[in-house]
Amino acid sequence: MLPNKNTHRTSIPVELQDMKRSELGEKFAELHRQLQETKKSMLVIVDGWEASGKGFLLKDLTRELDPKHYEVAAFDESTLEDEQHPYLRRFFMRSPKRGQIVFFDRSFYYDLFHQLDMEEKTLNHILDDISFVEEALAHDDTIVVKFFIHHSKDEMADRIETLKEDPYRKVLVTKQDKDQLKNYKAYRKHFTEILEKTNFEETPWHILHVDDQKDQSRMALKTCIDCLEDWLSRDLTRPQLDLDFIGNSPDIVGQVDHSPIISKKDYDDIKEDLQEQAANLLFRAYQENKGVIVAYEGSDAAGKGGNYQRLTRLMDPRGYDVATVAAPNDEELNHHYLWRFYRDFPSLGRMTIFDRTWYGRVLVERIENLTPVYRWQEAYEEINQMEHNITDQDYLLLKYLIIIDKDTQYDRFMGREKDPDKQYKITDEDWRNRDKFDIYNTAMNEMVAATSTKEAPWKVISGVDKRHARITVLKDFIKRMEAFLDD
Amino acid sequence: MLPNKNTHRTSIPVELQDMKRSELGEKFAELHRQLQETKKSMLVIVDGWEASGKGFLLKDLTRELDPKHYEVAAFDESTLEDEQHPYLRRFFMRSPKRGQIVFFDRSFYYDLFHQLDMEEKTLNHILDDISFVEEALAHDDTIVVKFFIHHSKDEMADRIETLKEDPYRKVLVTKQDKDQLKNYKAYRKHFTEILEKTNFEETPWHILHVDDQKDQSRMALKTCIDCLEDWLSRDLTRPQLDLDFIGNSPDIVGQVDHSPIISKKDYDDIKEDLQEQAANLLFRAYQENKGVIVAYEGSDAAGKGGNYQRLTRLMDPRGYDVATVAAPNDEELNHHYLWRFYRDFPSLGRMTIFDRTWYGRVLVERIENLTPVYRWQEAYEEINQMEHNITDQDYLLLKYLIIIDKDTQYDRFMGREKDPDKQYKITDEDWRNRDKFDIYNTAMNEMVAATSTKEAPWKVISGVDKRHARITVLKDFIKRMEAFLDD
Repeated sequence: MLPNKNTHRTSIPVELQDMKRSELGEKFAELHRQLQETKKSMLVIVDGWEASGKGFLLKDLTRELDPKHYEVAAFDESTLEDEQHPYLRRFFMRSPKRGQIVFFDRSFYYDLFHQLDMEEKTLNHILDDISFVEEALAHDDTIVVKFFIHHSKDEMADRIETLKEDPYRKVLVTKQDKDQLKNYKAYRKHFTEILEKTNFEETPWHILHVDDQKDQSRMALKTCIDCLEDWLSRDLTRPQLDLDFIGNSPDIVGQVDHSPIISKKDYDDIKEDLQEQAANLLFRAYQENKGVIVAYEGSDAAGKGGNYQRLTRLMDPRGYDVATVAAPNDEELNHHYLWRFYRDFPSLGRMTIFDRTWYGRVLVERIENLTPVYRWQEAYEEINQMEHNITDQDYLLLKYLIIIDKDTQYDRFMGREKDPDKQYKITDEDWRNRDKFDIYNTAMNEMVAATSTKEAPWKVISGVDKRHARITVLKDFIKRMEAFLDD
Repeated sequence: MLPNKNTHRTSIPVELQDMKRSELGEKFAELHRQLQETKKSMLVIVDGWEASGKGFLLKDLTRELDPKHYEVAAFDESTLEDEQHPYLRRFFMRSPKRGQIVFFDRSFYYDLFHQLDMEEKTLNHILDDISFVEEALAHDDTIVVKFFIHHSKDEMADRIETLKEDPYRKVLVTKQDKDQLKNYKAYRKHFTEILEKTNFEETPWHILHVDDQKDQSRMALKTCIDCLEDWLSRDLTRPQLDLDFIGNSPDIVGQVDHSPIISKKDYDDIKEDLQEQAANLLFRAYQENKGVIVAYEGSDAAGKGGNYQRLTRLMDPRGYDVATVAAPNDEELNHHYLWRFYRDFPSLGRMTIFDRTWYGRVLVERIENLTPVYRWQEAYEEINQMEHNITDQDYLLLKYLIIIDKDTQYDRFMGREKDPDKQYKITDEDWRNRDKFDIYNTAMNEMVAATSTKEAPWKVISGVDKRHARITVLKDFIKRMEAFLDD
């Protein structure tokens, strides 16, 4: 994919030759202003050989833009803290908001490009993560433009010499520069492989290999202009998908067996021992530096809160967090819907319990028409892929769906209304949602059908007998954690 | 301040002896629910000797609380990333939201307690930061309750032995435990000194030194209950302050000399050289690992945006960010008003330009009555203290106030309305604010009088001639940066 030594380098098109960079920059700035009026956004990735002039290019790309509405995020080697989180986190956190352009100086490709001898398994994780994030962003109306600056071995040697002679810039010559120069051929082969593997249809690489740095800026500006212009002119809405499980999923939720009961005595007999086992297992996860994510969904008033309070009763409170998921705030709405979950996923060695989750996308957002149909339809696949990537990276994901029947819900709502200590728990919205009880059940059935994967199956549990539900979760937690930690 | 060896340890009051911890916990949980209905919040700090049972206490304090509305933040040694930010940042970020209780397992006292031989200068920085943050939180209706768990040398030795014998917990015995045990006497003296220095009237230490761990939990729960009950019952509004500069400040803003003009030719002659110097200085700050904060305030349409675009024109875009400060969002409103600025301050080696700043507190929030009078009045002192602490920690803070007169503003507003490319810049709100032109000038005069400190003076600049304003900022930036970096 990289130009051969013998191939002529990309020559600059005639119509660009005489254009000032500032003219091109202003055209880009004009499109940038148009972008701000839309819900679309743009991510520009600048990568390439060491010492290939990424800084020069970034300066030229951004010079005419309004600094209020763009950001430059420079990525270096991951820190220890980065490594304690899902690989994508630090990149996802910096992805553009609606209306914004973000420039990545290096990116989620950093490790791929820099490590010649990456383990196959790690390589595949990262490739999975990258194809996932680029597609997810594109689905969310972010155009991703990727530049790779190429230069020949001689050029690289020249650049490094020039840098060394500059009193201000000589500190920029790093061990990595020298390493790439020394092993130029191996890196060239390596880059070519990575570039080919990640030259996706929607997010292809633009290889820059131009004699003159200013011409290079002209070409990159032109590419940005063309891509953004096209993106702005496009109607990005998509047709509905034809998903075979929609309107056609087994009624798992309706068929839950609500008969199991655990007596107060049995419950008191076994509860504490299970809670202690659960606490010890969480401590082992801490020792083994593994992360645990517990996702709770289910009917309103099914007893989710009481359930995880029993799960965590004997756990060290420093070892876990509870994330309550409500309607997204402004900042969250300005990003991909999974953005806030990447932010909140636990670091390795810790657990986060999600009270309501990313599945809101295919439940409340679907039912209340908060999201276009094609977007929540796409979420099933996006979520599966995200969960696959996360569970592949030292995380255990447990998904509990706590279900009650309509009569039980009615009794609990009435009970809450009568109890002054619990009145705050019941709102008009709860009663409105109740009218949609059956629609929610259908949506839950389809969610279970579509997202009960091998790595992260749904555990569907009757919440009619709260003691039964609590013991079931405790036992399942212990079983899954033991299998996970024995791995 | 710590109990003597010969002094009897704190004995548990009779009325607490027979109380179950769960009873006390439930009382605490009830107050916690009341807290959620208010704008108040609570921070509980648990510190003490190594291996003194902080985890046990935290578990007992939190067991009955609704996990949706409390958090436990455990702090360890600062990471490299923490050290690249203002000292308070990682703690401030985790401070409680309105209605919430947050427990700190260790805290901003971490370094103080752990380093026996801290340099005087560092010690004083941290003490300044701590007294600042505790007072700032209290002013913002957060009650801060601080526990220090004390134990004797023999008890400490016993605890460590017990831990070592526990297969699950033995990994918890650290080098620091052994170090404290070995140098018990020196640490005891050190702790006493720190505790005495930070035993502030509003946020005193509660020393726990109780035989039985369960009794210790009872006493700590009782303290939390008493403190929170008192806090909830208190009317926290305060009377207006009598500030001598209010209604009594020199008319610096009204008296700005608007006559200086720089011709297009002169401007073009000198601009680029200054921009290059500025860019090189920012690069030096990066090399020397110093941080730069540039704060812009001033009249509407004074040309702030155009001004800093000229300042940054030749700078490496990876070296700085622009933070545009608008009305706070929900999450920001739920925290101290300085919270979002601690979040956005640059790491060392970088620069952040704030387009509008924390001074909104004493400008728009004051004028539009968005904040009670006593709160914006207190802000002058809080801001001075914050700026003092920040500039004491390798940051340079530059504050530019760009002023235009009323006629110039009128012309610019009209000009914007006529220019299709600039219409988006002018809103009804701008015209409304214009009616308050003189009130804003008064507020700016009082702001300058109260917050023009030696470390961070206001530079008041006429924006009537934009070229003059740009060159003035460039020159001032260069002068201040040179002095800062030569330090």
